[in-house]
Amino acid sequence: MGNSFGQLFRITTWGESHGGGIGVVIDGCPPRIELSEADIQRELDRRRPGQSSIVTQRDEADRAEILSGVFEGRTLGTPIAILVRNQDADPDAYKKVANIYRPSHADYTYEAKYGIRNWQGGGRASARETIGRVAAGAVAQMVLRKLFPNFDIVAYVTQVHEIRAVIASRGVSRSDVERSAVRCPDNAAAKIMTQLIERMRGDRDSVGGTIECVIRGVGAGIGEPVFDKLEADLAKAMLSLPATKGFEIGSGFAATGMRGSEHNDQFETRDGRVRTTTNFSGGVQGGISNGEDIVFRVGFKPTSTIPREQQTITAEHEPTRIAAGGRHDPCVLPRAVPMIEAMAALVLCDHALRHRAINPDSEA
Amino acid sequence: MGNSFGQLFRITTWGESHGGGIGVVIDGCPPRIELSEADIQRELDRRRPGQSSIVTQRDEADRAEILSGVFEGRTLGTPIAILVRNQDADPDAYKKVANIYRPSHADYTYEAKYGIRNWQGGGRASARETIGRVAAGAVAQMVLRKLFPNFDIVAYVTQVHEIRAVIASRGVSRSDVERSAVRCPDNAAAKIMTQLIERMRGDRDSVGGTIECVIRGVGAGIGEPVFDKLEADLAKAMLSLPATKGFEIGSGFAATGMRGSEHNDQFETRDGRVRTTTNFSGGVQGGISNGEDIVFRVGFKPTSTIPREQQTITAEHEPTRIAAGGRHDPCVLPRAVPMIEAMAALVLCDHALRHRAINPDSEA
Amino acid sequence: MGNSFGQLFRITTWGESHGGGIGVVIDGCPPRIELSEADIQRELDRRRPGQSSIVTQRDEADRAEILSGVFEGRTLGTPIAILVRNQDADPDAYKKVANIYRPSHADYTYEAKYGIRNWQGGGRASARETIGRVAAGAVAQMVLRKLFPNFDIVAYVTQVHEIRAVIASRGVSRSDVERSAVRCPDNAAAKIMTQLIERMRGDRDSVGGTIECVIRGVGAGIGEPVFDKLEADLAKAMLSLPATKGFEIGSGFAATGMRGSEHNDQFETRDGRVRTTTNFSGGVQGGISNGEDIVFRVGFKPTSTIPREQQTITAEHEPTRIAAGGRHDPCVLPRAVPMIEAMAALVLCDHALRHRAINPDSEA
Amino acid sequence: MGNSFGQLFRITTWGESHGGGIGVVIDGCPPRIELSEADIQRELDRRRPGQSSIVTQRDEADRAEILSGVFEGRTLGTPIAILVRNQDADPDAYKKVANIYRPSHADYTYEAKYGIRNWQGGGRASARETIGRVAAGAVAQMVLRKLFPNFDIVAYVTQVHEIRAVIASRGVSRSDVERSAVRCPDNAAAKIMTQLIERMRGDRDSVGGTIECVIRGVGAGIGEPVFDKLEADLAKAMLSLPATKGFEIGSGFAATGMRGSEHNDQFETRDGRVRTTTNFSGGVQGGISNGEDIVFRVGFKPTSTIPREQQTITAEHEPTRIAAGGRHDPCVLPRAVPMIEAMAALVLCDHALRHRAINPDSEA
Repeated sequence: MGNSFGQLFRITTWGESHGGGIGVVIDGCPPRIELSEADIQRELDRRRPGQSSIVTQRDEADRAEILSGVFEGRTLGTPIAILVRNQDADPDAYKKVANIYRPSHADYTYEAKYGIRNWQGGGRASARETIGRVAAGAVAQMVLRKLFPNFDIVAYVTQVHEIRAVIASRGVSRSDVERSAVRCPDNAAAKIMTQLIERMRGDRDSVGGTIECVIRGVGAGIGEPVFDKLEADLAKAMLSLPATKGFEIGSGFAATGMRGSEHNDQFETRDGRVRTTTNFSGGVQGGISNGEDIVFRVGFKPTSTIPREQQTITAEHEPTRIAAGGRHDPCVLPRAVPMIEAMAALVLCDHALRHRAINPDSEA
Repeated sequence: MGNSFGQLFRITTWGESHGGGIGVVIDGCPPRIELSEADIQRELDRRRPGQSSIVTQRDEADRAEILSGVFEGRTLGTPIAILVRNQDADPDAYKKVANIYRPSHADYTYEAKYGIRNWQGGGRASARETIGRVAAGAVAQMVLRKLFPNFDIVAYVTQVHEIRAVIASRGVSRSDVERSAVRCPDNAAAKIMTQLIERMRGDRDSVGGTIECVIRGVGAGIGEPVFDKLEADLAKAMLSLPATKGFEIGSGFAATGMRGSEHNDQFETRDGRVRTTTNFSGGVQGGISNGEDIVFRVGFKPTSTIPREQQTITAEHEPTRIAAGGRHDPCVLPRAVPMIEAMAALVLCDHALRHRAINPDSEA
Repeated sequence: MGNSFGQLFRITTWGESHGGGIGVVIDGCPPRIELSEADIQRELDRRRPGQSSIVTQRDEADRAEILSGVFEGRTLGTPIAILVRNQDADPDAYKKVANIYRPSHADYTYEAKYGIRNWQGGGRASARETIGRVAAGAVAQMVLRKLFPNFDIVAYVTQVHEIRAVIASRGVSRSDVERSAVRCPDNAAAKIMTQLIERMRGDRDSVGGTIECVIRGVGAGIGEPVFDKLEADLAKAMLSLPATKGFEIGSGFAATGMRGSEHNDQFETRDGRVRTTTNFSGGVQGGISNGEDIVFRVGFKPTSTIPREQQTITAEHEPTRIAAGGRHDPCVLPRAVPMIEAMAALVLCDHALRHRAINPDSEA
Repeated sequence: MGNSFGQLFRITTWGESHGGGIGVVIDGCPPRIELSEADIQRELDRRRPGQSSIVTQRDEADRAEILSGVFEGRTLGTPIAILVRNQDADPDAYKKVANIYRPSHADYTYEAKYGIRNWQGGGRASARETIGRVAAGAVAQMVLRKLFPNFDIVAYVTQVHEIRAVIASRGVSRSDVERSAVRCPDNAAAKIMTQLIERMRGDRDSVGGTIECVIRGVGAGIGEPVFDKLEADLAKAMLSLPATKGFEIGSGFAATGMRGSEHNDQFETRDGRVRTTTNFSGGVQGGISNGEDIVFRVGFKPTSTIPREQQTITAEHEPTRIAAGGRHDPCVLPRAVPMIEAMAALVLCDHALRHRAINPDSEA
């Protein structure tokens, strides 16, 4: 249990890094939404290994096949099953680590939990698992665009190691982001980040960083207090992604150093709508969207897999040393951008449907 | 929907700030756990208003009554219903704000979502809602202590505004925490924090801060990848609490500035057990506990309710000014400590039962 | 676990026969529905003991108190908690059976499952548990009447032991049903049924029977294949009621003796709507309502509690004999009528909301 | 929504009659269970079209491929995805009925619900959908055999149209059932049933009937009152199968004509265990198994698809006539036997895990 996400727009992902493939079943997608394999492939290509020089060179086409739920180019309201076959799987490359707990990987904890694990390439704990999420997120975005004409979601790298970009969340578009392989819309910073990531590869080391995400156009009223507050479900969605260590919304941890009189977002009427003068709330108040941009950030640790020798133990608890041999990302952030957008879209789509259930005439 | 939490140890809370009361139903509590109203009251008293000079002076005894599910001092395995009546409710005090959207409160968003709201004291969005959580968390702690003989959970304030305590998470006990009204085990920092909070009351302003929580003794194997990873459910639990803006586990956002070679937790055998030399993972790897202390932090914004005049609008979208008149906390952190422990216990208890379902002979 | 029902309109019931009381929390009720305690009391009074000479004479007023979720006569969209205190509870009356497994009761199975049980009056297994369901069903009916202007639900006794009434489901109204204490709209049959039930009391024995339920006015499109088909959720709802042994929809078990050419419901256009010429389907096809009346039947066993000596064993597995001493129903059917209506309303309300989530502009 | 079943052992099925295929994802399967594709294929072959002369001659090999969750012959604890490709799909054969609502099919209701439908062979409403259930049920049976050494489940046809077999549920084994193509262990009745079904094919008509199912060896304590009673979840499981019209447990509807003094199952001690002298309860009391055989029956309507002309309407509401042209079953019961066993196994497996969560040391 634990491989499903969402209440009404509910996805179930499956698959290991090596084996038959990776996939997702989406249950609860509204009918009559236009959907093609190309809509899904577009997002998968942004997540795909080998897409640029700064990501892992594992060669996977990651071709998505829609197996059900779509008929003559439109969704049926029945479950949508999507399959991506594994191709460049080289299980033998992992044989030498079959018996070793790699530092800060899930080898030991999977063994502790299940008493068995697929040691080929990380098995279920591989980031390859996120293929199902990104495919489902592409569908969620199609639904959201139909529900909210002005819906838009864009994530981007704001920090890699100690390099911090300067970005105003309000104006960023996806094309700004896609301009650089590192997916940072601050061109100057992007260049230095790229150099740093390449240097890490040379150093056989890795770095982490921060991604910011902005969601626009969903209007006020989305979110289900008291446990399924919008920020709570976003936090869960983000912390369920591999390598994430932190989540913050709006002012985030910076709020801890502010006073109430500074931090409160005052209401005003602007362009005939209720607006706030500032957006420290990050677009959510009391767990419900208030119509402002929803803005949050996610912190990533440096990639655990590094081709540098480290101390660890075997499954028999004997000390040993290990250096990663396979192809890996010195920095996961560029490929994590579409994952974050996907998870955010899944949360929003699910919550939009939940809200419609009780308020069918609302803007949502 | 959105008022239930947990899959197997599942709670449903209900109640508004004013009205018949506040309560919780716990479904899925294992049978034959010793439980009394005193076990619950002990935790409620730590959350209660009026407990010290630095919290709100609203006078509520918050007496818990167990209505079902307990027989002759032990749980029956049937739902446990707990009721706390509202007492010091003064709805008239709120009449003058019935028509006003208070800045950074949920007045506007509840109105936008539901088209109706109980304007008496925040209604469902009041922090009084957390009574049900704290009561249920007390029960979860009783279960956890039975499941794990060495189970322990302790949260404490590490930062108020710009005052940061120096605390080693390893050694902190609940009695260390309860020594100060501000619930910070660094005595020197606690004193300054208390002074600051009192100054804020004088300034008719408020401050936020950070709480850290440590969970010990649950062993390896707890957590359900890929969506219900332990840190994901903790993140959701924490961000569902009022006034929270951020969550981080282990190294957290600090990990963004580290290299993989620094950040990886190396495995070793210590005292006959698999251990890690460092704990940047925060006790969780791949979404599953690894037996080290689980350590996370939560960031709180400054209280929105301040007795200082602020600009806002009415429900008719007319500009107006408002200053809070009621009794409020200039800093929510001291009372948030038991809330965080409660939510963490709920997550752990639920996950422990989920793990037992498939691995009944495991340590968990 | 197992004390919640529904996905979007979700109820959680709690309470034992003896103890603090019985209650329910409703999460997911749409906002702005008019609701008062009188709306709930009306249904509880139809379920109440002591309402007529043919039901148990236990004296319980069963007064419902709404504790939350309603403000100035309308629902808030927040959880609605309803409490009924236990009054005429005489635990001592049960002391002599504390150690005995009553035949066809749940004493033994609760002990086997939980290793503990509340032996006072059946504890959680008492039919008193259905108070929460009936209260929630009253709320569900208020919602359904708002969603579907022509919504109507009526259940009635069609058989007691070997006495079968002759009733055309199409024309029956609730006032027809309420004319007799036995809740059978066939006056002649009702009279004989009443005599039989009274005779059973004299014989210190009990009888079962059948209840039919008709739901009108929900239109086509309600139901969620493939597992949450409308008839599947109705079947679950009914078999979750105490003393039920069977469920059938439309033609039911009689369909087993028919040919396809007889049983198929042919489509036609009538009054500008798609209709079927017959209704062997019982208003549901492929798990989705087709706009015809939804008609189903539920079979009840004779009451297990009889004041006649029977053979059984003690908790120590010693043979013993027992005769029920308390006040009981020689036939549960008259009081089960509102329970069936309540459960049916809960299923329909939940499914109506689920349908709205994906099709907000539909008739539903 | 509505395509998942189970709480802890949770399956999600997907797929239409025509298109990429049919499949299932199983989440929550315990780790280290031996499982091969042959274990699944064995059950699929019993459900497969073309297996005998009395079922549809559609030619589908229905080969199951395990895509994930199994490693070196044992389950990993991660989701198990199973795929069966569609092969003998002839969508053109359905073009002429694309615009017609077939009597007692789901054509009209799917259109009413979703505003779109896959008219090729019934789409999602096709009985081909049950492939995923049968595959998952095979896995559930592997788990149950590991949990309960004496676990056994066997279903069989007891009635076809007016032909009723004479069978003592206690002694029936699966080999008794598989002796006849009609899956009725009463040889004499089986012969007449087969003749009747063949005659129906000649008559271009169809018949229904009844299947009984016996579950042995699960012990006492399984089931989760008050809503997820064992018989309630079995009823839902069965009524979610295509063509089912009724469910009864133990004495079933026959109980309606009995007296309490006849119907009560008296407890005794036999072979050192608590037993009942009779089993009118059908192995379940108060929603929890009591250790006796669990016995229930399911009523099926005659197949809706008949190659005989019937009156109906088009999607434009014009009257028309239709006769089924494809290959169909004149009686669904022989192929429904493994479906019922599968659904029953899914219910039992899920409940066994739920029970273990709170009682890991129990027999269950």
